[in-house]
Amino acid sequence: MTTGECSDLFVRHFPFWEQLSPQQRDFLCRSAHTAHYEKGASIHRGDQDCVGVILVKSGQVRTYLLSEEGRDVTLYRLFAGDVCMLSASCVLDTITFDVCIDAEEDTDVLIINAAAFHQLSDENIYVKCFGYQLITTRFSDVMWAMQQILFMGVDKRLAIFLWDEISKSGSDQIHMTHEQIARYMGSAREVVTRMLKYFAGEGIVELSRGGIRILDRKRLRTLTE
Amino acid sequence: MTTGECSDLFVRHFPFWEQLSPQQRDFLCRSAHTAHYEKGASIHRGDQDCVGVILVKSGQVRTYLLSEEGRDVTLYRLFAGDVCMLSASCVLDTITFDVCIDAEEDTDVLIINAAAFHQLSDENIYVKCFGYQLITTRFSDVMWAMQQILFMGVDKRLAIFLWDEISKSGSDQIHMTHEQIARYMGSAREVVTRMLKYFAGEGIVELSRGGIRILDRKRLRTLTE
Repeated sequence: MTTGECSDLFVRHFPFWEQLSPQQRDFLCRSAHTAHYEKGASIHRGDQDCVGVILVKSGQVRTYLLSEEGRDVTLYRLFAGDVCMLSASCVLDTITFDVCIDAEEDTDVLIINAAAFHQLSDENIYVKCFGYQLITTRFSDVMWAMQQILFMGVDKRLAIFLWDEISKSGSDQIHMTHEQIARYMGSAREVVTRMLKYFAGEGIVELSRGGIRILDRKRLRTLTE
Repeated sequence: MTTGECSDLFVRHFPFWEQLSPQQRDFLCRSAHTAHYEKGASIHRGDQDCVGVILVKSGQVRTYLLSEEGRDVTLYRLFAGDVCMLSASCVLDTITFDVCIDAEEDTDVLIINAAAFHQLSDENIYVKCFGYQLITTRFSDVMWAMQQILFMGVDKRLAIFLWDEISKSGSDQIHMTHEQIARYMGSAREVVTRMLKYFAGEGIVELSRGGIRILDRKRLRTLTE
């Protein structure tokens, strides 16, 4: 990555860039590198590593909680232009929990080395503030997910999930197993299967070996409201 | 509140105090007032008000989510010396969720007017950073609670709840209904009653009309691990 490419990315995605000294800018560029993750690859795994601050250049990453029993609950997804701070949680002493982060599609990222980010945020209050402010935004995302899980009926949650999937892909066909959907929703496969059969009975979806086809977008939409 | 009392509180609990100009300090003191809440009183209720930044001087406050159906889930509790930012969420544009805050005991607080805090955090990056950093700490508290709710067995959660209660009060007697315990745990009354009966059958607790008595602290402790 050239200095020009580096500063171009930082100017666009890191508002603290203009508060840095020339030396700090140079240090930051030397501490950042690009990386590519294949679809399904693990980017960050709980407390076992400390990747650093990640800017998603293209693709999609999913952040989730993983229980000791292997149950996982999606917290939020990030897309091109989003910045992930929890992959650098080791350098933020107010963050005491661990998450896992996977590439959900082929994904290109810019990674700022965790130790370098830590040093800069000690030197420069704007860098520090950027990190905490961003985490606060993710806190809001997580609270939204939690309120879905804790309070909303499974029908509504499933409808929202299916609606989001077809909105993202632009297709009425969803190629996922009930098991995968259950994991994304933080629910059990049995619960998802039961509800999908109910949706099928109502003519909202059609189930097949290959996945789920949406037959009635309008009714699905109504269920999400 | 005199200027001396005010600056004494701020020096001890708000690290940004030393970064303020004399004018800003004066403005902050004029924008803060003390208040008393009786046990059980509502301090902040979702999006219906915007109290401001709250310093707990004595007592205890509970922050919780409330669903449309009236189900509530405790996020965290704050004690003397703790600062609550979510009661000023209206001035933090990265916070898009609403919580409720009640006094759990007779509680004395210092309240910084929300608009004044907003103005100061626009003027002074240290004030802004303080707010976001504090919210990040609460994010960790909330994630701890969420992992309990999502992943842990009810027996372990109930044991932890009972253990925390007797540790706080120093007494083996807990004067709460099953309904109250279920609300604090984010569970259903039936589930709590069933598990308490199981604990009673095991000789860990004794149930009576007045509440719960812990008979076997050692086994209760083991269940929390």
